[in-house]
Amino acid sequence: MQRIPFAEVHQALARILAGLGFTAPRAEFCASLFAETTRDGVYTHGLQRFPRFVRTIRNGSVDPSAEPVLQVGMGALERWDGCSGPGNLNAWAAMERAMELARGQGIGCVALANTNHWMRGGTYGWQAAEAGFLAICWTNTMPNLPPWGGIDPAIGNNPLVLAAPRPEGPVVLDIAMSQFSYGAIESHRRRGEMLPVDGGFDTEGNLTRDPAAIERSQRALPIGYWKGSGLSVLLDMFAAVLTLGRSTHQIPADSLRETGVSQIFLAFRPESGEQAARIAGEIVASIHACAPAQPGSRVRYPGEQTLRIRE
Amino acid sequence: MQRIPFAEVHQALARILAGLGFTAPRAEFCASLFAETTRDGVYTHGLQRFPRFVRTIRNGSVDPSAEPVLQVGMGALERWDGCSGPGNLNAWAAMERAMELARGQGIGCVALANTNHWMRGGTYGWQAAEAGFLAICWTNTMPNLPPWGGIDPAIGNNPLVLAAPRPEGPVVLDIAMSQFSYGAIESHRRRGEMLPVDGGFDTEGNLTRDPAAIERSQRALPIGYWKGSGLSVLLDMFAAVLTLGRSTHQIPADSLRETGVSQIFLAFRPESGEQAARIAGEIVASIHACAPAQPGSRVRYPGEQTLRIRE
Repeated sequence: MQRIPFAEVHQALARILAGLGFTAPRAEFCASLFAETTRDGVYTHGLQRFPRFVRTIRNGSVDPSAEPVLQVGMGALERWDGCSGPGNLNAWAAMERAMELARGQGIGCVALANTNHWMRGGTYGWQAAEAGFLAICWTNTMPNLPPWGGIDPAIGNNPLVLAAPRPEGPVVLDIAMSQFSYGAIESHRRRGEMLPVDGGFDTEGNLTRDPAAIERSQRALPIGYWKGSGLSVLLDMFAAVLTLGRSTHQIPADSLRETGVSQIFLAFRPESGEQAARIAGEIVASIHACAPAQPGSRVRYPGEQTLRIRE
Repeated sequence: MQRIPFAEVHQALARILAGLGFTAPRAEFCASLFAETTRDGVYTHGLQRFPRFVRTIRNGSVDPSAEPVLQVGMGALERWDGCSGPGNLNAWAAMERAMELARGQGIGCVALANTNHWMRGGTYGWQAAEAGFLAICWTNTMPNLPPWGGIDPAIGNNPLVLAAPRPEGPVVLDIAMSQFSYGAIESHRRRGEMLPVDGGFDTEGNLTRDPAAIERSQRALPIGYWKGSGLSVLLDMFAAVLTLGRSTHQIPADSLRETGVSQIFLAFRPESGEQAARIAGEIVASIHACAPAQPGSRVRYPGEQTLRIRE
């Protein structure tokens, strides 16, 4: 695979965004978030996603010049309106604000209504952890997953991110509530491969690893069956109640019109960076010390693969 | 099945606890938490668990008279020492304090070190939601689950609770990071039943629904495979960093000596109880409107079954 210099990619994206109405600094920054996502190996939410992002600007779903506006501050919890701005710039600003609140109060929470797809959720985990904070954030999405016991896509895959700082590199978990995205299911089908574990139902209602069968039934599986289904419902409920914005059932089920999503950003300030580093390091060591199921391999902690790709 | 009056059970438990060194009001309250758990149908963490709770008092793991002590307050985030007190009384006090912080600042977080098994985690979700708050809480546990890719039980099943208020009854999710507890696996084996979905590996490393095979391998499955495994690691890391207490790898792997666990309690105050009720109601309605996989059934929201059992 040919490698394209990072700076070149970044500049090409920034030029396109500037032509779409982004100010120069916002175009630069937005482009860097896309380019860094691809550099980290999360191809589906980096350059591959850029054309769709451009279409959502052109169709008016995303307003390139909009910035979040504070609605109500309750102390350590604030409600902001994302004003249909670019999802990644809005999310970055929300996490910055959550950290600012946490500097003063130990914890900060920003509830962001009326925003757009945040692209790679892990970005905001890395952002906070690299600044020394623990962070949790999640977004709701359009309905794209059947709840446990149902066949309609009535719940969202509502990605959830948890991140913790560590001097050698953050520990970052970025998981959707579906076991596999439809993008991952499609790419398995194209490669003629079965999924590594059950990923949904066939049209007869049997669990299956066959990607084509899941595409036919449109019944992807929540993580942990009933458990991930319930977690998706609660994440959506928290997002809608705290933002007073849209819940999943109100978001258009069309990836080019999936606008007005609701997101929660939580930052926690560790009392002592040194103790946080020691504790995180000991936990990582305990994971690495676990006997592997495949001889010669090593059990990984969340985010370890991203650090390796970066290096 | 013979039904025993709630008051009778409650009084019997309270008498036993008073004899073990609980003050009268604490014995009454602790007994009510056990009795209510069984009333709600969560038998494994109610009366069934009471004998084990008594043994942990007798062996000194649980100090009946200890109460949590504030260590450091950072504003909306506080660190408390549970002083090896009874896990359910400590957890109740911690959630009360998180709500008190949220009354003032919109959000409150209590990080509780050096506490004991909280019995049914859902209790503290119901507690907060019935008082009008959204809540998230979790606990770490002794190592009892192999991480994805590993064979040793190096991570905890770290139960996670999310709860939201609703006038007709709270929406409460209470999930461990293992797909099935060893208690559930054992009871399937005793009934001669397969698990409804894969619950672990057999000794050859194949996924299986056979409860006896999982008991032999001691390799239960995290929810969502690698996803729940990662979530368990992050929940433990948050708990240990924020409490400065023990992480899973430091907790004795013996259910009678599983003491000094670390827990996080988060409460969020909705801006408007009326709007929170409307939004939660609409989301529940959207779940109920989903076409069921089994004709004649209905898709349920988290906690719906508990409400039905109570009625």
